[in-house]
Amino acid sequence: VVGVIFIGLLIRSMATEEPAKLDAPTIAERDSLAKRESGVTENSPMRLRMEDFIKQQQKEIVKELEAIDGKKFRIDTWTRENGGGGISSVLQDGNVFEKAGVNISIVYGTLPRPAIEKMRVNHKAIDADIQSLDFFAAGLSMVLHPVNPMAPTVHLNYRYFETENPDGTANAWWFGGGTDLTPSYLFDEDAIHFHKTIKEACDKHDKDYFPRFKAWCDKYFYNKHRNESRGIGGIFFDDLDEHEKDQENTFAFAQSCLKAFLPSYIPIINKRKDMPYTEKEKEWQQIRRGRYVEFNLVHDRGTAFGLNTPSARVESILMSLPLTASWRYMYEPEKGSREQRLVDVLREPKEWV
Amino acid sequence: VVGVIFIGLLIRSMATEEPAKLDAPTIAERDSLAKRESGVTENSPMRLRMEDFIKQQQKEIVKELEAIDGKKFRIDTWTRENGGGGISSVLQDGNVFEKAGVNISIVYGTLPRPAIEKMRVNHKAIDADIQSLDFFAAGLSMVLHPVNPMAPTVHLNYRYFETENPDGTANAWWFGGGTDLTPSYLFDEDAIHFHKTIKEACDKHDKDYFPRFKAWCDKYFYNKHRNESRGIGGIFFDDLDEHEKDQENTFAFAQSCLKAFLPSYIPIINKRKDMPYTEKEKEWQQIRRGRYVEFNLVHDRGTAFGLNTPSARVESILMSLPLTASWRYMYEPEKGSREQRLVDVLREPKEWV
Repeated sequence: VVGVIFIGLLIRSMATEEPAKLDAPTIAERDSLAKRESGVTENSPMRLRMEDFIKQQQKEIVKELEAIDGKKFRIDTWTRENGGGGISSVLQDGNVFEKAGVNISIVYGTLPRPAIEKMRVNHKAIDADIQSLDFFAAGLSMVLHPVNPMAPTVHLNYRYFETENPDGTANAWWFGGGTDLTPSYLFDEDAIHFHKTIKEACDKHDKDYFPRFKAWCDKYFYNKHRNESRGIGGIFFDDLDEHEKDQENTFAFAQSCLKAFLPSYIPIINKRKDMPYTEKEKEWQQIRRGRYVEFNLVHDRGTAFGLNTPSARVESILMSLPLTASWRYMYEPEKGSREQRLVDVLREPKEWV
Repeated sequence: VVGVIFIGLLIRSMATEEPAKLDAPTIAERDSLAKRESGVTENSPMRLRMEDFIKQQQKEIVKELEAIDGKKFRIDTWTRENGGGGISSVLQDGNVFEKAGVNISIVYGTLPRPAIEKMRVNHKAIDADIQSLDFFAAGLSMVLHPVNPMAPTVHLNYRYFETENPDGTANAWWFGGGTDLTPSYLFDEDAIHFHKTIKEACDKHDKDYFPRFKAWCDKYFYNKHRNESRGIGGIFFDDLDEHEKDQENTFAFAQSCLKAFLPSYIPIINKRKDMPYTEKEKEWQQIRRGRYVEFNLVHDRGTAFGLNTPSARVESILMSLPLTASWRYMYEPEKGSREQRLVDVLREPKEWV
């Protein structure tokens, strides 16, 4: 989510920046050539390995979700003039999913001076004196809004970011991302399963990761004006670079996280998708969807920057919004109800594992 | 809408500021005493006259809308500890209105240094050297979302702002506000009637007002990330102070604008509220409601500042959101359709009178 900030920022800059070198091949051109000539292997630059990985994952996730839903995703492939592009996969009005988006994007661009200065705060490898800087960003973003109010909304985003030396080698690099669950009705066993699966993926790499990134998630996905969390948490991290672990290990961590998605969510959706529910329960889901819209449009830095980016693909950014949402004035759950229990937990985030 | 910016800013400051003088009566106390002792007359301070005027107007508008809808408004009266408060009137799930909010708020507060500096840009009467400044703000805000997709949403806000000298007399003062129409289906005759009625109210005071404030409205209510206006315009103005006209004339202008609301909108809602419509047309309305939510949550400065204000009454701020809204991925109106005609006009704002 936050990753989009940078992508947004940068695309904006690209609109005002002149192309830097007209004679030397761009990194996008070099990458394209490398892919054609020798494919992507473990020896390829991380850019190509990440692109390859998220493309595979997108296919696998889309296939699995189509099997559950019975309806096909619409696939839109788009390119940017200066290299890169994306694949947006959206399923709408499905049997299980009201709206499901699984998108990847690959961006090659140039950072202007102010963006460089901002980035140096977290990444000292970036030269303080240069006037512009080539960069690369690749990420997978997903939001699934199920039809059944007993089934939770899930969000996921993993991304890799790199700045380039003039010779085409990587300068600074980092990974970011996370995943979190947003139920309308809280089933403790689902919350526990989701967090447990993610924790196991984290623990394989560093025992500190899960508690750190769970706390970061609770802090980030917070609807401040409502004094409540957007959902019941998950993990969130950003700027994971060589000060933490080397690139190979950090990539392995991001891969574990993304691969943990299907085992973290599929058992939950399978258990909830066919549960009976009342009109009143559907209405509560719609109100919770309204809160989801509020977070994404008011507080999410990624969405805000994305929308303020002149050349952004708005429909891909806003695939995160639910098909339908509702705002009822002064809606209050009944005391002691399941709706009230959810709100109580959103007001005081819990440790589930 | 923008007025709320200041109110938001100020309420925030009030949370951190110590009460300035514990012995002298506050302006709120003085106003309260004056109201009890002699009521509100033409000789009362503008604060009380504006408060009185918007309270009357709220009653009149609510009465008229209840007569049209057949359902009653819910009235919530709230007070702030340091003087002032508000009355929120909301009608939900009505026969004619899906959601209708007619709110007034009265704020007495203290401006901190950074807010004073910001305000001095437009109001040189404010002393540059003081450390804090008492202020007053009063306004009426209204948003009506009808059930019938042929009937347009309407928004209105008029407000008065004043800063105080230590002796309780007004230092700087200004009026702001406006009104605009947001149809899902465009009836030219409605657009013309709405603009004509507002123009007549403006022309009585200054022939330049309507063209200036229509242009300001088109510029402000613009969904930049969609490259389209929120609606088909109206008027919008801010910081109207003694550099323009004296206080008496400016109050008279704001009064004319607010009084023009019922004649500008009632004939339209009466004409459209019982028109037949299809499910497809209701769906288009829901998509346009989604765009309304996007403007209010992403671009509207008043809403953003309001929501970032710790002590704000969130339910009153967000009464502007529709009861229901929808986001469909890549929804495109058919070529030559009425839906496409609306989008064309939103992309290129028209002069209706």
